[in-house]
Amino acid sequence: MKVIKTNKALRGKLAFLRSQGKSIGFVPTMGAFHEGHVSLMRRCVKENDITVVSLFVNPLQFGPREDLARYPRNLKRDIEMASAVNVDFLFVPSLQEIYPEPLSTFVQVGKIGNILCGASRPGHFQGVATVVLKLLNIVQPCVIYLGQKDAQQVAVIKRMIFDLNIPVSVVICPTSREADGLAMSSRNIYLSPTERRDAVVLNKALRMGARLIAFGERDGGKIISKIKKLILEGSSASIDYVSIVEISGFAPVRRISKDVLIVIAVKFGTTRLIDNVIVKVHGK
Amino acid sequence: MKVIKTNKALRGKLAFLRSQGKSIGFVPTMGAFHEGHVSLMRRCVKENDITVVSLFVNPLQFGPREDLARYPRNLKRDIEMASAVNVDFLFVPSLQEIYPEPLSTFVQVGKIGNILCGASRPGHFQGVATVVLKLLNIVQPCVIYLGQKDAQQVAVIKRMIFDLNIPVSVVICPTSREADGLAMSSRNIYLSPTERRDAVVLNKALRMGARLIAFGERDGGKIISKIKKLILEGSSASIDYVSIVEISGFAPVRRISKDVLIVIAVKFGTTRLIDNVIVKVHGK
Repeated sequence: MKVIKTNKALRGKLAFLRSQGKSIGFVPTMGAFHEGHVSLMRRCVKENDITVVSLFVNPLQFGPREDLARYPRNLKRDIEMASAVNVDFLFVPSLQEIYPEPLSTFVQVGKIGNILCGASRPGHFQGVATVVLKLLNIVQPCVIYLGQKDAQQVAVIKRMIFDLNIPVSVVICPTSREADGLAMSSRNIYLSPTERRDAVVLNKALRMGARLIAFGERDGGKIISKIKKLILEGSSASIDYVSIVEISGFAPVRRISKDVLIVIAVKFGTTRLIDNVIVKVHGK
Repeated sequence: MKVIKTNKALRGKLAFLRSQGKSIGFVPTMGAFHEGHVSLMRRCVKENDITVVSLFVNPLQFGPREDLARYPRNLKRDIEMASAVNVDFLFVPSLQEIYPEPLSTFVQVGKIGNILCGASRPGHFQGVATVVLKLLNIVQPCVIYLGQKDAQQVAVIKRMIFDLNIPVSVVICPTSREADGLAMSSRNIYLSPTERRDAVVLNKALRMGARLIAFGERDGGKIISKIKKLILEGSSASIDYVSIVEISGFAPVRRISKDVLIVIAVKFGTTRLIDNVIVKVHGK
């Protein structure tokens, strides 16, 4: 595996490989790798001739009061983990490389980026979409691999790719979980031991919501109330949102009649965690 | 020359040609071709293996009170003109092909898109940048050819390409002019015979401004006053703006110390025309 630091060097290598007809797959990350990231890399390596992983902690997607400064960074370990699964190129650009000047041009993501996590984190999805577009333009992959854990990010990026005719396929990989069901996240290391134990309630609550739908409940409001109750009873958490939405458009669903996504964002102490579950609805 | 109507058909043809190592040049247009367009096509044909010209009257860049409905359209003549200079593909997508659904994602162009023409035409440059990015993603050319006539459009697109790392070079071609100096524009056909005669003042005023700078005038304000006076004396025009700006950033220049652009927008009756001149400043 080669660690590459500049756009120019990466483009040079990839232009050559592309001219040889190699397929290029891409996994964008902010580093601090866990099994979730590694599962994306494995799948990308399996499905493409060349796998590019980017590691860039993107300031544009952090709010002024968020955790940019303390976001976990461990390049040495990340290099080992990516290398172990046969990633070809780990692209680790500097801030200067990605933002040589303050941007004038941004991707504006519309309504889908302004609800839920977008409402709690103003500008977050504009920052995500803008950097992902920049990285797509640098790497020019055939396929981009994204994790379902960040469901709204997936929806925003898919919509951007559709709206802007970006020539790339999207593969969504399932959320990797700890043995007790907690969704893997680079932010889990912020949790105190008590918070870590409490955080299991997220997955438990989502599974309960899915079960209610499976057993015939179609009233979104009722399901949301029960999920909130379970979360607040079983932990010291404060709820940012619990919502049931359409899978691609993220429009809120009151009466469930087709497949939906239950999405939640909850704070344990100062740590904000998100999780979601796709619920298939049969007999439509 | 092949006339192509769908993204899919165009992408298919170009993917094949790209795999053969052919270079692809691209000229985006709104049709109603004149010598300005044709000069871009000629240069593109000369410098690339394959020339793609798009012809799409983009509603997104017209304001609600602008001339979208009456914008000149003459596909038959346009096909003949493009064919005559050996364009390979004339891409003429339908509205449905470019906007299958109302967009959620847009390109937000920042300050450079909100001044001058952007102030007079709110949303115009967002519409331009968004459709140009979509077309770039469909065509994936090595080079895009733009006309200097639309100087602010050039600046907005160059900035977008820089900010978003779009893998394309930009070639700017000089403004084509009628024998009497009027910049060629598809909108010139709107002019009444009197307005057409009056419109010559635009180029005259710009040349006077350039001469003042060449003779040592460095006070932007004084030059602008003289240009405005000349335009208002010699015609029935109403001035939208006359400004002296930096060439790439379009920041207004009060004291001229390096190369500048004099840009003007003037209305003759209901027809709004723009023109500009680049003025080199020696002995910096």
